[in-house]
Amino acid sequence: MEKVYRTELTPVSFLRRSAYMFPNKTAIVHGDRRYTYQQFEERVNRLASRLYQSGFQKGERIAFLCPNIPPMLEGTFAVPLVGLVLVAINTRLSAGEVEYIVEHSNSKMVFVDSELEELLEGVEDIEVVRIEDTGDEGDPYEDYLAEGSPAAVESVLEDEEETISINYTSGTTGQPKGVMYSHRGAYLNALAQAIELQMNAETKYLWTLPMFHCNGWTFPWAVTAIAGTHVCLRKVEPGKIWELFESEGITHYCAAPTVQIPLANHEDAHELDHQVITAIGGAPPSPTLLAQFESLNISCIHLYGLTETYGPNTICEWHSEWSELPREEQAKLLARQGQGHVTAGLAKVVDDEMNNIPKDGETMGEIIMCGNTVMKGYFDDQEATKQAFEGGWFHSEDIAVWHPDGYVEVRDRDKDVIISGGENISSVEVEQTIAEHPAVMEAAVVSIPDEQWGERPKAFVTIKKGEEATEQEIIDFCKEHIARFKAPASVEFSEELPKTSTGKIQKFMLREKEWEGQERRVG
Amino acid sequence: MEKVYRTELTPVSFLRRSAYMFPNKTAIVHGDRRYTYQQFEERVNRLASRLYQSGFQKGERIAFLCPNIPPMLEGTFAVPLVGLVLVAINTRLSAGEVEYIVEHSNSKMVFVDSELEELLEGVEDIEVVRIEDTGDEGDPYEDYLAEGSPAAVESVLEDEEETISINYTSGTTGQPKGVMYSHRGAYLNALAQAIELQMNAETKYLWTLPMFHCNGWTFPWAVTAIAGTHVCLRKVEPGKIWELFESEGITHYCAAPTVQIPLANHEDAHELDHQVITAIGGAPPSPTLLAQFESLNISCIHLYGLTETYGPNTICEWHSEWSELPREEQAKLLARQGQGHVTAGLAKVVDDEMNNIPKDGETMGEIIMCGNTVMKGYFDDQEATKQAFEGGWFHSEDIAVWHPDGYVEVRDRDKDVIISGGENISSVEVEQTIAEHPAVMEAAVVSIPDEQWGERPKAFVTIKKGEEATEQEIIDFCKEHIARFKAPASVEFSEELPKTSTGKIQKFMLREKEWEGQERRVG
Repeated sequence: MEKVYRTELTPVSFLRRSAYMFPNKTAIVHGDRRYTYQQFEERVNRLASRLYQSGFQKGERIAFLCPNIPPMLEGTFAVPLVGLVLVAINTRLSAGEVEYIVEHSNSKMVFVDSELEELLEGVEDIEVVRIEDTGDEGDPYEDYLAEGSPAAVESVLEDEEETISINYTSGTTGQPKGVMYSHRGAYLNALAQAIELQMNAETKYLWTLPMFHCNGWTFPWAVTAIAGTHVCLRKVEPGKIWELFESEGITHYCAAPTVQIPLANHEDAHELDHQVITAIGGAPPSPTLLAQFESLNISCIHLYGLTETYGPNTICEWHSEWSELPREEQAKLLARQGQGHVTAGLAKVVDDEMNNIPKDGETMGEIIMCGNTVMKGYFDDQEATKQAFEGGWFHSEDIAVWHPDGYVEVRDRDKDVIISGGENISSVEVEQTIAEHPAVMEAAVVSIPDEQWGERPKAFVTIKKGEEATEQEIIDFCKEHIARFKAPASVEFSEELPKTSTGKIQKFMLREKEWEGQERRVG
Repeated sequence: MEKVYRTELTPVSFLRRSAYMFPNKTAIVHGDRRYTYQQFEERVNRLASRLYQSGFQKGERIAFLCPNIPPMLEGTFAVPLVGLVLVAINTRLSAGEVEYIVEHSNSKMVFVDSELEELLEGVEDIEVVRIEDTGDEGDPYEDYLAEGSPAAVESVLEDEEETISINYTSGTTGQPKGVMYSHRGAYLNALAQAIELQMNAETKYLWTLPMFHCNGWTFPWAVTAIAGTHVCLRKVEPGKIWELFESEGITHYCAAPTVQIPLANHEDAHELDHQVITAIGGAPPSPTLLAQFESLNISCIHLYGLTETYGPNTICEWHSEWSELPREEQAKLLARQGQGHVTAGLAKVVDDEMNNIPKDGETMGEIIMCGNTVMKGYFDDQEATKQAFEGGWFHSEDIAVWHPDGYVEVRDRDKDVIISGGENISSVEVEQTIAEHPAVMEAAVVSIPDEQWGERPKAFVTIKKGEEATEQEIIDFCKEHIARFKAPASVEFSEELPKTSTGKIQKFMLREKEWEGQERRVG
């Protein structure tokens, strides 16, 4: 018998409740289009029931490749509602990478924005529905919805630990890994975001953060849980954002510094007459940015996490007494990643043998996490899962110090991931690409500091005897073969790369030189 | 192997996290005493480890009988921390009722406030620790803590559905029933309270609502989750509350109208310079009270629930457009119980065959609930549990209409519970008590409206031939045998009670007369 006192946790339930409580409230704004919560739910029901009609088996994957437009929000609810698994693909990837993800996830269907169709050139033998983002009849996506029913769809969830989505990350190896989220984890992470960002039914959330990033840090579910308004954004343009702050009365948004810095420095930047709360992730806010935010009436929360932790896992909780300190001090305190949020576990920082390092703010170790908001594992990759979960904790591969007050602060990255504008770039992947250039003998790629992007890749290259290549040729070669943002910002040619006695390239030394004078080794 | 991505949900974890994040923040205020979060946790660890040393078996019950003082908060965390089950007893009960609860729950130990020791007169052969509420050495409770260790205590929780507490309610029969809460349900209900009341680390929560009521509606855990400050209150006195609003900068409190009305009408009532959010439960706010709150800068949230639903289960979510309506209209809308909160399920209103009644705001039916924030069942009472859970839903026994917008509104109570000042009074119990009076032949007790208490019991009595009794004698007789607040407010003698053809007393008719001219049949 089903238990009266147990319902399987799923964030899909938030839409059902908000549509019930606030049917006529605006749920989604997209330019001139507006959907009430009732309309939002009906569109989700249509999509869900139409998918169900297709006869997909429970647990099969459905891919989405689109910007922050209503269909992406709808897919985030409709796909899991009928027991399917959402694969929201990064729109900045190359066609080859998209092909890999569609194939690896064995997605049965792809919904693609008309501006991104060329990214599907390698995808074959699979149903594709084009989204023209008109909201009108004749738009293939809208016609697909029209074939479904707006009536309530019964959830087929049997166990809250079932997979709700797979989010592909480029980790330390060349191939992306599929991070599996559960209904339970997504539900709990979303509630924490609602609490930490102090959202409520008056919230107008601006979609600056891509929904394909960790399912938008679980904010599609969090904003819906508190019956806030989602304000969509096809393209992140600072001028447009300033306009929406006023015209839509935006109260909350999330973004990496790549978005925040141009926003704060934009010619339309001005003190807002209402406070806006922003969560910044990917890299900490600089003192300059903090000062700018203050004058703009933007309150800043620093979050940290990985794809493997549903996005935000730690929060640098503000202590009221810090507000008395000089701004430089405040920025220093807020630059720290903090500790696990309210539904996460507390993070630890450990040495190679998984012993806690001293909380002295100096010793370095690896941040490890566990708890309900850690991924279930990597899809179809037991080996990588086993490695990531070694010793019963998830290994972030981020190197941090542990402060006496228990807050962690990231100082470096264990492996070779470069985080540029919030996007992960695998240095190994860039190296392998460069190495395919006929003139190249060996390549090492490291991150260099970049004011706008946080970090960018730089390549150190040795050329084969008798061959020649220019910096621009190497960069262009990369842009042809992998996503453009992964191409190195610069290329330095040398006779030899620094190596250990066993012949391993000492990338540490290369990076050290580039980051001289900076306190951290990550941007 | 333990899962990296699963931690059993327990609200006890909130204390650990807040003590970690905010060790020096004030967690508890009690008069001149203040405990930081670190001290709060250390005291909880001491109590927990001391209890553990006693060798209690997992799942055994530990009772507390005390007002809203720090030990009650500490017990709410320490008892479940070591796998024991908290039984927080209503301090307004009679010694006989307390004895019944201690025995029925088979509590192994009682912590009792020195002012309430006489309520334990019937309790024998059980360890009792007296709380003198001094916070100092020599206070038996403090000495008990001193025998424990402040070091971190490992949780022994194996399954989040284990029982965290048993809260006794007087339902419709004479004997209280033990409502079992789970760790999972308490965790989820607490998160919902934090969200619905918009609490955060700046929250100063005033303990007007008894912690023995549904574990204080789960607020001991909710306030701790967001690292707010608990402001204790030994006695609910309006003058004192007005003083604390200012001196402690109170931001939130919960109470029934019995507390709210004298508070709003107190001579010290004045417009606060900061907004205070209050949740009102037990009965809806009147238009008068709403108007008063507005002028006092108190914002009012109407919640509804039962002991069986961890306290608040539904919330009358405010729609911003209602703020434009005349206050009478606002009060009417806010008087409704609303719908399930963010972690609860949606409530239904059904007829005798459990079919949904029409959403017409007129037809009456029973409110039923299900989901994670419904009790596990009644302790050691399978029959009552089975009855309450008939058809896979929890039966509230509250009679309501269902409005076109989905909100439910309580209109009457199915059985014979009288809710007076937020306390349940079983009319059957009062009837049985009166019937024990040697002069009484038969008694029927119904609720009558009362401005201050919402409802109070009134007795209709027939006297045996040749016997005599006065109203005062009956009232005094009740006060001697059951809790004083359960004694009837008045007694009406008559020759005969109205009965059905089968001889059942038609209490409906008695009540109808008393409530004439009132829209609802509950206060």
